[in-house]
Amino acid sequence: MTKREVRILTLVNAQIGAEDLIVDVGAGTGSISIEAAKIALGGHVYAVEKEPDAVKLIRQNAEKFNVKNLTVIEATAPDGFENIPPLDVAIIGGSGGWLMDVLNAVDEKLKIGGRIVLNFITVQSLANCLGWLKAHSNYRYDAIQVQINRLENIGFKDMAKALNPVHIVTAKKIHSAQAAKVIGFAEMKSRIVSKGGLNCA
Amino acid sequence: MTKREVRILTLVNAQIGAEDLIVDVGAGTGSISIEAAKIALGGHVYAVEKEPDAVKLIRQNAEKFNVKNLTVIEATAPDGFENIPPLDVAIIGGSGGWLMDVLNAVDEKLKIGGRIVLNFITVQSLANCLGWLKAHSNYRYDAIQVQINRLENIGFKDMAKALNPVHIVTAKKIHSAQAAKVIGFAEMKSRIVSKGGLNCA
Amino acid sequence: MTKREVRILTLVNAQIGAEDLIVDVGAGTGSISIEAAKIALGGHVYAVEKEPDAVKLIRQNAEKFNVKNLTVIEATAPDGFENIPPLDVAIIGGSGGWLMDVLNAVDEKLKIGGRIVLNFITVQSLANCLGWLKAHSNYRYDAIQVQINRLENIGFKDMAKALNPVHIVTAKKIHSAQAAKVIGFAEMKSRIVSKGGLNCA
Amino acid sequence: MTKREVRILTLVNAQIGAEDLIVDVGAGTGSISIEAAKIALGGHVYAVEKEPDAVKLIRQNAEKFNVKNLTVIEATAPDGFENIPPLDVAIIGGSGGWLMDVLNAVDEKLKIGGRIVLNFITVQSLANCLGWLKAHSNYRYDAIQVQINRLENIGFKDMAKALNPVHIVTAKKIHSAQAAKVIGFAEMKSRIVSKGGLNCA
Repeated sequence: MTKREVRILTLVNAQIGAEDLIVDVGAGTGSISIEAAKIALGGHVYAVEKEPDAVKLIRQNAEKFNVKNLTVIEATAPDGFENIPPLDVAIIGGSGGWLMDVLNAVDEKLKIGGRIVLNFITVQSLANCLGWLKAHSNYRYDAIQVQINRLENIGFKDMAKALNPVHIVTAKKIHSAQAAKVIGFAEMKSRIVSKGGLNCA
Repeated sequence: MTKREVRILTLVNAQIGAEDLIVDVGAGTGSISIEAAKIALGGHVYAVEKEPDAVKLIRQNAEKFNVKNLTVIEATAPDGFENIPPLDVAIIGGSGGWLMDVLNAVDEKLKIGGRIVLNFITVQSLANCLGWLKAHSNYRYDAIQVQINRLENIGFKDMAKALNPVHIVTAKKIHSAQAAKVIGFAEMKSRIVSKGGLNCA
Repeated sequence: MTKREVRILTLVNAQIGAEDLIVDVGAGTGSISIEAAKIALGGHVYAVEKEPDAVKLIRQNAEKFNVKNLTVIEATAPDGFENIPPLDVAIIGGSGGWLMDVLNAVDEKLKIGGRIVLNFITVQSLANCLGWLKAHSNYRYDAIQVQINRLENIGFKDMAKALNPVHIVTAKKIHSAQAAKVIGFAEMKSRIVSKGGLNCA
Repeated sequence: MTKREVRILTLVNAQIGAEDLIVDVGAGTGSISIEAAKIALGGHVYAVEKEPDAVKLIRQNAEKFNVKNLTVIEATAPDGFENIPPLDVAIIGGSGGWLMDVLNAVDEKLKIGGRIVLNFITVQSLANCLGWLKAHSNYRYDAIQVQINRLENIGFKDMAKALNPVHIVTAKKIHSAQAAKVIGFAEMKSRIVSKGGLNCA
């Protein structure tokens, strides 16, 4: 299950509205899906998850928390996207190695103004995602690394225990007209490289 | 102004209800106060701030965001607490060096079940706060250190830029009956010390 | 055993010379003691450790790495300090809850110009150490928090795994004449408080 | 200039021997080159740096610290590698955007058992480096992220100030016979993908 602080920041960054249509890719236990469904009471959440055991868990949790506006899709994304309507929000916690395909499928469904929020625990998936976003000039993004240490109460002292760091990438789809004003990646690259490159590895 | 991610986690940890009465000590520009006031629409926020310029800024921001349920108190806390009613939530971003006095004043006003959320940027204030909480057995607390690195988009690369780390301490006031079941600090200390102390500095 | 990176930074900060006399308090498995002994080939290391099993381990490791200039003292520091000569370096990895007593005992033995390097995993011990150093104007110190994430090779990706953070405090004993020029803590406090304190918790 | 703690860990990971031949790519002010030259007193350091001002600085620093076994090569690496002999150690602090070319050039010069230590401040260069290492089965590597917070002494308190995080990658060139026993990247990939991929973004 996604750690509490990362879950909170992910949900806040998704800027979920009351009527929003949301996909949660790699939904796991459904902790994000269910909280999203409770925010988007007039909307709907599509939780895509490939593991049968996890799918069962999401259904149980949805019942337990009395969440009705949630559909679980048992599939390896982007499979299962066919029946998903145009989206306001996509939350990607796990992509099973098919990140590029998932991003392309999300992009097809995402409305202008829609948000994608992704969590990463590996360098390579993070780099791939940033590469995809740089290649799509109609997205604005920002990215953070979140590192949480819990202070464990051990009587009359408190000891720092580290949680594994997570990167959160938040992207917003903008109008092509706006994107046109943004300097293109290829042009940016040529400008920088022609100056001899950055002085860092 | 408190950094975005710390502000979000602080507000979420405060578990603000729609009717809650809230004090924001060291309110600064009012970024926390105003967001709290918008959550507690049927409640009220008391923003205590000693700097006249900051007080002016909070008033301007309250007007700009059309927030009515917010009272600014120009004082060095715990001065100014006299007219504050019993509280559901206390958020302490700055204590001007009077942390113990502020905690005592908050404790007098805080209802059973009420929450205190504190942000710390110094080791000493954090340690003082934890000491106060350990000495008050009718509080349960947890504490985290939050470290955020922003990935700065520098064309075809993204460079990690660190923000200063902040500790967030969240405490909940519990019934004395519950507290009685919690092992006392003095007893805990004696038990541990009698075993020879912890094997760490 | 102290984590590799923390051990390296601790040893480097100790600025061990070839003839130095060194105490290692809370020596544990002896990982620091043995490396220190190999640097101070013409000097001597006194490893103070209270746990009999750890003491055995240090002796075994010393034999294994053929280290002769190392004396193990089985005691809870500052017990066992009686027979230790004037010191160039004190490394304090564990103080068993008696940090203030250990610092006082080290201070009595430490030569002018000598270094103390301490590792901390709890907020309270760190704060106590900083308080002791602020109260002793003939010490200069700096302190860092070190957080290491290991990238675990999981095939075609690398996943970040956090290690618990450690604070390293490094203090140097200076001549009283120099210390006299340093502004006293009491005076500094009065100056700052008279300005109304710092605007942070 | 590379931050102190990163410089220390980089130099220690390079395991520099007294007779070692070393290249320092993107030498900057020469802080790493000069320390390396003082360790490898019977060896030699080749500092490759493209910025004329930095080249001047390295020469000045070498003179100031009386370092003779250091040759500065004013070039954008891998240019300037022609006259460099077989190497024991390559330290890569900056590659000016030509990381792959630099790694290939280093690989040609590096002896079996030789070490490459790289510092990264961007996600993309880190990912590229890890990709290169995964594609070269005769290298073993480990990678860490180092985050340092300095406690700034502000009178009677100490405030945490973050330094930007750096990744340090350390690779060792092994015998082909050993490499043969290591499972190949392609095979590893097929195995993992055939199991459906990892359940994380």
